[in-house]
Amino acid sequence: MAKKSIEILDTTLRDGSQAATISFTLRDKIKIALLLDELGVDYIEGGWPGSNPKDYEFFREIKNYHLKHSKIAAFGSTRRKDLRPENDPSLSSILEADVKVAVLFGKTWTLHVKEILRTTLEDNLSIIADSIQFLRDHGLEVIFDAEHFYQGFKEDPDYAIRVVNTAGEAGARVVALADTNGGTLPHEVLEITRRVAENTRVKLGVHMHNDSGTAVANSLMGVVGGARHVQGTINGIGERTGNADLIQIIPSLVLKMGYRVLKNEDGLKKLKQVSSTLYELAGLHPNPFQPYVGDNAFTHKAGVHADAVMKNTRAYEHIDPSLLGNQRKVVISELSGTSNLVNYLEKLGIKVEKKEEKLKKALKAIKEMEARGYSFDLAPESAMLVAFKEMGIYEKFFDVQYWKVINENGLALAVVKVNSRVEAAEGTGPVHAVDVALRRCLSKDFPEIERVKLTDYRVVLPGEVKNTESVVRVTIEFNDGERSWRTEGVSTSVIEASIMALVDGLDYYLQLNKKLKPLVAKE
Amino acid sequence: MAKKSIEILDTTLRDGSQAATISFTLRDKIKIALLLDELGVDYIEGGWPGSNPKDYEFFREIKNYHLKHSKIAAFGSTRRKDLRPENDPSLSSILEADVKVAVLFGKTWTLHVKEILRTTLEDNLSIIADSIQFLRDHGLEVIFDAEHFYQGFKEDPDYAIRVVNTAGEAGARVVALADTNGGTLPHEVLEITRRVAENTRVKLGVHMHNDSGTAVANSLMGVVGGARHVQGTINGIGERTGNADLIQIIPSLVLKMGYRVLKNEDGLKKLKQVSSTLYELAGLHPNPFQPYVGDNAFTHKAGVHADAVMKNTRAYEHIDPSLLGNQRKVVISELSGTSNLVNYLEKLGIKVEKKEEKLKKALKAIKEMEARGYSFDLAPESAMLVAFKEMGIYEKFFDVQYWKVINENGLALAVVKVNSRVEAAEGTGPVHAVDVALRRCLSKDFPEIERVKLTDYRVVLPGEVKNTESVVRVTIEFNDGERSWRTEGVSTSVIEASIMALVDGLDYYLQLNKKLKPLVAKE
Repeated sequence: MAKKSIEILDTTLRDGSQAATISFTLRDKIKIALLLDELGVDYIEGGWPGSNPKDYEFFREIKNYHLKHSKIAAFGSTRRKDLRPENDPSLSSILEADVKVAVLFGKTWTLHVKEILRTTLEDNLSIIADSIQFLRDHGLEVIFDAEHFYQGFKEDPDYAIRVVNTAGEAGARVVALADTNGGTLPHEVLEITRRVAENTRVKLGVHMHNDSGTAVANSLMGVVGGARHVQGTINGIGERTGNADLIQIIPSLVLKMGYRVLKNEDGLKKLKQVSSTLYELAGLHPNPFQPYVGDNAFTHKAGVHADAVMKNTRAYEHIDPSLLGNQRKVVISELSGTSNLVNYLEKLGIKVEKKEEKLKKALKAIKEMEARGYSFDLAPESAMLVAFKEMGIYEKFFDVQYWKVINENGLALAVVKVNSRVEAAEGTGPVHAVDVALRRCLSKDFPEIERVKLTDYRVVLPGEVKNTESVVRVTIEFNDGERSWRTEGVSTSVIEASIMALVDGLDYYLQLNKKLKPLVAKE
Repeated sequence: MAKKSIEILDTTLRDGSQAATISFTLRDKIKIALLLDELGVDYIEGGWPGSNPKDYEFFREIKNYHLKHSKIAAFGSTRRKDLRPENDPSLSSILEADVKVAVLFGKTWTLHVKEILRTTLEDNLSIIADSIQFLRDHGLEVIFDAEHFYQGFKEDPDYAIRVVNTAGEAGARVVALADTNGGTLPHEVLEITRRVAENTRVKLGVHMHNDSGTAVANSLMGVVGGARHVQGTINGIGERTGNADLIQIIPSLVLKMGYRVLKNEDGLKKLKQVSSTLYELAGLHPNPFQPYVGDNAFTHKAGVHADAVMKNTRAYEHIDPSLLGNQRKVVISELSGTSNLVNYLEKLGIKVEKKEEKLKKALKAIKEMEARGYSFDLAPESAMLVAFKEMGIYEKFFDVQYWKVINENGLALAVVKVNSRVEAAEGTGPVHAVDVALRRCLSKDFPEIERVKLTDYRVVLPGEVKNTESVVRVTIEFNDGERSWRTEGVSTSVIEASIMALVDGLDYYLQLNKKLKPLVAKE
């Protein structure tokens, strides 16, 4: 028997862009749409043409691309109470967007009908029916979003169900029950959705907000209650506390509830990449604790967990991380036993015994650094350098004798002396200038460092007092085309901390290539 | 009739500190414990004395404080399979911690009993019974955490229930059902917890992890299913994707489900403060999108929402933000209509008509700045300065003619020329040096700026390419003892962006005090 399927409507470009601090350019929007099509969502809600002129450009521009999986939908409200559909600006703007699918929202909650819309309950039903009929007459597929459905149902269940059936009879293909203020709890969603499903023949969807911290759960409970269409956004971005996070919903629907979801059969494996690209475009730091795709989602820190996971991955992992393009990590920290450190060294090809004395010394040295403000969870390769030194497998390839920075309006200049060689360089900022000068010094002896690129740079202010006087921790990620590594520096100066991380990053690369690779090969 | 109550056990200090990147000092731990007591949780799990020597110091030190509401508990495992309780190091370490409550964890899942513990199912029951009995004999109250309960129940429900009853009969006051790998979904938690409640007389608790993104919902479903004790951490910090977030669970239990929770009657109002202090101590940025307490949790961005909220707060808010010590915010951005801007100006006492032409000009100028990389959601007062200029209510009090920075190993020196006055200052970093020099220039004409303190400083790298060459956005928060405001600067240099934000912050303060207050008073 074929598995039942659930439709996905992504509203990252519309509801997601209502998040505080988020603003997408036209180019961002196109990039996101192509990513969503690649993922294989059924519908991409591209924007609200009536409210935002930038959204028109999106609908025009996206026509130049061939989408493999997804249909583009335009969002808008039902007609105004005093206008005929053909004269209504919101409905016209949907037609102007020239799409095949419209997502139309209307009122369900009697409070909103009376106090926000200021009309009668019967008139609201006519508004909904008229507006849907008008778009159907113009050849559009219509998805109706019943705004504030759950609040509405609690106050007047009969009216809420009449709204659903009115929309269905007027030709809406799906009616999505929206928890617009996010106040509904999962057991209520389950019960209410079930009752609606028993009283209607139209296909039901859900549209959840996260104000109670349960948007993901509410979406799943909606499905348990009978919904077969789920709306949400990538990473749950959206107004206030955000929308339901599709990145977290889709794996549970597929891997745990057995539904067929996403038109691209390999879509699931792309979730981590889609999530991180979206964070980049939204200008947000990725959430390392995000379920399924976060960098820490399969990270084991406590010694006992790390130990058990090595014995049997099912012991502390609910699913296989590679199914979502994620991977297992074991971190080094003050809670970690030697298992974690051994795990790291073994990945580098260095075999050590768990009870070896120098391993314990290395762990102790790492823990002491952490007590001084380092956090090696973020930058394990800085911890590795400490371990190499304690274990006697470190070789000093270069020595930074001094660095000087001049940073004046428009000019960032660095002078660096390394291994008795002095080099100067300008940069777009002081850290960049030091980076260039440092590489100039080193590239004569170590031309291979030209392959090393900086792929991420973060400034974190740990501790209690956050002002310009406090200590900062800078983490830098490097990549040489084959692997990534991260190092860090801690100082009261952003520049100094950056340079410490920079030096560690290049040093680690040289240790790996000049010292360890030959060492491992010899054994 | 008295309301039913739910017990809260906070494990921020134990399970929370297993989060990647988080590490608490002894002083941090004491501060957190006092905060939790103030909040009024029933139990504070202080640590795992057997695994971490730092935790002993905590148990010793906390005895010097008088706690008003909470009991301190020590965590540990059941005895080893081959040792008698009196010889077992884990049980001894709990006794050495000298506490009145022990939280003991043991195996429930047959996979773990066989493959990790490597013993028989019957022997595991003896281990559990013995260990609890031993601690009870030493006068301790015991809470038993049934590890991997939900996975265990799915594989062998009878055995899982036997574990619960064995623990209860041995004297455990509460048995907490743990979803240790976080793989269980809310409808499963509801059904399984209900079945356990029907088959045991012991008080049930729940302990949820967030691997499926549903830890908060799962905790609530556990309560619907019959649990009366909830374990979790502040902000949901913890191993992998984290634990259940008490900050999100408690308000739903109290405000939506009608339970009595927290021994301090004013505890709910402290949630926002507890949450943000914990982020500080953990070295994490607060999550602005966090339900109930996040800075954006009651922030309205879309013009239509902002408009509706001003008509009726119930329209888009599920609860009153002040119940949790939070507040409503309306942000300014490219999606916002003039309502949002009017709202801000009115808060400053400036009355404007929604349709005024200069208001539209101001909004347009703000939107143009955003297109160039600013994000005024984060720093509304930088937007206000733009608005003041467009509306003709800005006065230029000072002019930064130049700034020079010398930043060499150990020395950060700034020279600033403002209103023809030249001042130099050293600082702990270049931004700090400029801050001091700038204030020296200004304090002669404007002595009141000495009241202005910097309370937060953040560096964000928006956009796609994150390396040392990219544009940075610096946001600074200021406070003069009466109010807070935030400004920002955007540049390729961290220092330059910082100085832009710094100048805006002081400028805003002067506009408010020198220009606007007299203006408003006059009307």
